Amino acid sequence: MNSFKTIKLAIIGIGSVGSSVLKIFQKNKKIIEEKCGCRIEIKTVCDKDPSKQKLIFNGTKFTTNYNEVLKDPEIDIVVELIGGIHPAYEIISESVKYGKHIVTANKAVLSEHWDKIFLLANKYNKTIYFEAAVAAGIPVIQSLNEGLAGNNILSITGILNGTTNYILSLMTQQKCSFDTALKRIQNLGIAEADVSYDISGYDTACKLSILSSLGYSSWVKLKDIFIEGIEDIELQDIFFAESFGYKIKLLGHSGIYKNKYFFEVRKFLVPKNSVFANINNEYNGILIEGSNCGKIFFAGKGAGGFAAASAVVSDIICIAKDIINAVGGRAQYVEYIPKKLDILNIKENEGYFYLRFITLDKAGVLAKIANILGRYNVSIASVYQKEPLLKLRRGVPIILLTHKTKEKNLISAIKKIKNLDVVLKPSVYIKIFSE
Amino acid sequence: MNSFKTIKLAIIGIGSVGSSVLKIFQKNKKIIEEKCGCRIEIKTVCDKDPSKQKLIFNGTKFTTNYNEVLKDPEIDIVVELIGGIHPAYEIISESVKYGKHIVTANKAVLSEHWDKIFLLANKYNKTIYFEAAVAAGIPVIQSLNEGLAGNNILSITGILNGTTNYILSLMTQQKCSFDTALKRIQNLGIAEADVSYDISGYDTACKLSILSSLGYSSWVKLKDIFIEGIEDIELQDIFFAESFGYKIKLLGHSGIYKNKYFFEVRKFLVPKNSVFANINNEYNGILIEGSNCGKIFFAGKGAGGFAAASAVVSDIICIAKDIINAVGGRAQYVEYIPKKLDILNIKENEGYFYLRFITLDKAGVLAKIANILGRYNVSIASVYQKEPLLKLRRGVPIILLTHKTKEKNLISAIKKIKNLDVVLKPSVYIKIFSE
Repeated sequence: MNSFKTIKLAIIGIGSVGSSVLKIFQKNKKIIEEKCGCRIEIKTVCDKDPSKQKLIFNGTKFTTNYNEVLKDPEIDIVVELIGGIHPAYEIISESVKYGKHIVTANKAVLSEHWDKIFLLANKYNKTIYFEAAVAAGIPVIQSLNEGLAGNNILSITGILNGTTNYILSLMTQQKCSFDTALKRIQNLGIAEADVSYDISGYDTACKLSILSSLGYSSWVKLKDIFIEGIEDIELQDIFFAESFGYKIKLLGHSGIYKNKYFFEVRKFLVPKNSVFANINNEYNGILIEGSNCGKIFFAGKGAGGFAAASAVVSDIICIAKDIINAVGGRAQYVEYIPKKLDILNIKENEGYFYLRFITLDKAGVLAKIANILGRYNVSIASVYQKEPLLKLRRGVPIILLTHKTKEKNLISAIKKIKNLDVVLKPSVYIKIFSE
Repeated sequence: MNSFKTIKLAIIGIGSVGSSVLKIFQKNKKIIEEKCGCRIEIKTVCDKDPSKQKLIFNGTKFTTNYNEVLKDPEIDIVVELIGGIHPAYEIISESVKYGKHIVTANKAVLSEHWDKIFLLANKYNKTIYFEAAVAAGIPVIQSLNEGLAGNNILSITGILNGTTNYILSLMTQQKCSFDTALKRIQNLGIAEADVSYDISGYDTACKLSILSSLGYSSWVKLKDIFIEGIEDIELQDIFFAESFGYKIKLLGHSGIYKNKYFFEVRKFLVPKNSVFANINNEYNGILIEGSNCGKIFFAGKGAGGFAAASAVVSDIICIAKDIINAVGGRAQYVEYIPKKLDILNIKENEGYFYLRFITLDKAGVLAKIANILGRYNVSIASVYQKEPLLKLRRGVPIILLTHKTKEKNLISAIKKIKNLDVVLKPSVYIKIFSE
């Protein structure tokens, strides 16, 4: 242990993750210091809410003004845990300019400003670690960046948002509506008050952007990702999917199709024997396919203060070791000439799909639908005419599973089918995930 | 890219992993160099078999004498892939003394000589990376060492040997005997000619030793691990286990019980809803429980030249980056005062067990067995008297599942039960895994 050196931290933002980090340091400071090989001191804690001062201990300084932290020459590592784009972006970039290394859990600012942040870190030779930004305590960032470095990454797929996965799990297990499930998890304190970032798919997209930027060695912008949320999900589709051996999950999914990269966040029907089928509630699961290692699966809690704090503390330990070992900075992510990715419009991609139509209960309906699908080269793998789950005032459901088809063709066909006078409600189509 | 610097490698041992490493470099040299930020050259390849020379390319030198490699001042990284204790130990330690960093896939030499190897690496300020030594391409070594550093590790459990897992999978899926399954995978080329290290549990124990030494920050010696193989497994127990909702798996398992650490390699009954139940064939799965992150699960191919080579190349990239960043060496594993672990004799541990007795088919037998179990405080959770799978010449099977009990007590009871004149064959007991 290098007992002459003390590494000084500042933590900005004391929400659920920040307060868990404080508790871990309070309990395990000695063990952490042994792992780092030096002393570690939380010099300053900053939060805009002055009442957070009650959480600090051992002579740590408290401030509501983050500028005090940035300008303090003694601080080696700034831990940014406020989330959101502003002022997180300013805190990170100013800290780097003032010579500090960064640990952050902020997926939004990284996915929005990836290039600017890492170019700055390179320029100032500082490290930015962000294991907690994706899948909380699951060490998937480090694995993509280092442990799987000996591979060309071929695909990255994951359940990356605990809130939406909890909603879908509740709907599946308790056969309740989206609204009921959402209210239940808000009452349990699992979801944020504002869940719009989660249920719209934005949070998953930020995480997919980060994983993809690492995996494919090029910044994958949010605008390059097709994003669909779970707001419009209906219980009947969960039922139907289940009866065919599938669960519905919100996946971030990326890969390569005919030498082009595709990125999508959307509901998928996942086969029950898939690794994703048993990732329930707040758990996350990530499947990474490498050219040499094959498919590697990671799973664990994707939410919760301590799970994310586990990653934050691990990052602090890694940077502290680097400082002790006299490494300037290892902001490896954009160090070298970034690859230019050729991006595929998701609608040009092929896939298998689940379709549901509510139609009049009379002869010839299926033939009309099948006829239109055929005209657009959408080939039907199987057809189910199920009893409706709730007595519909009018109509019966027809469920189709397709063979592999271009999504673009499917959309065109559905537009035509909508105009049939036997079709009563908007049609639903959901992509099927195949490993 | 630091185009002025070239890192020079030597690879010693060109078996399945070594030749895969060569192929990866042949195919992806440019991508690897971009990730490293410098040029990488395989300067020398060494194998005792001169015919391996045909695998090299691009001006790489070939030798059958590893001393030429160790003494070459130009070599930065020695990649040791010969396996076994000797001369691997000498190659690693001499290389370190000659100022080289090491990448190795050798679980045996690490588990047998952990302290000596890492103390030497520290003394000479060299890095030793060994991601391929456990679970091939799954980045579990790095995760334990860095990504999960912010936790006290509470338990480590894994299917860590592809060969035994393949045998058990075949027995379960195809209802064949151990001998038939073994022959089949040898014919398929999946198992080594000599599988004794695999089926005896030794290979799993080496890997558990490495994971535990990292996780619990103290060298866990093989002698501290209770080791049992799968040689004596009978098909009927796989059948019975299945009928009660379990699969039989060989697990390396470690954890803490009443402040003492325990380490065991043995067959377990694994519930069908456990994460391990669906890890089949050559796949590996590892469950790590941390104080903050909760349970994290990793899964992927645990065998195969390319899967292991993926880890070897990743380690080479990490060391190359460190060299470029001017880090002397990051042999973190024994850098600080090692913890002294208090080790529990596994027989003092508590667990749930599956018991099978073959007895005479007459009244009062169960009462006699239950009576003895009761005298040793082994409490019965459930009893099954099953039809035998094969018509036994004499006797019927009685299967019991116990409540939580000390293994020591169970063993004493079974010794007494053996002496009952109604008991016809040696009794079988297998521990039940509960997550």
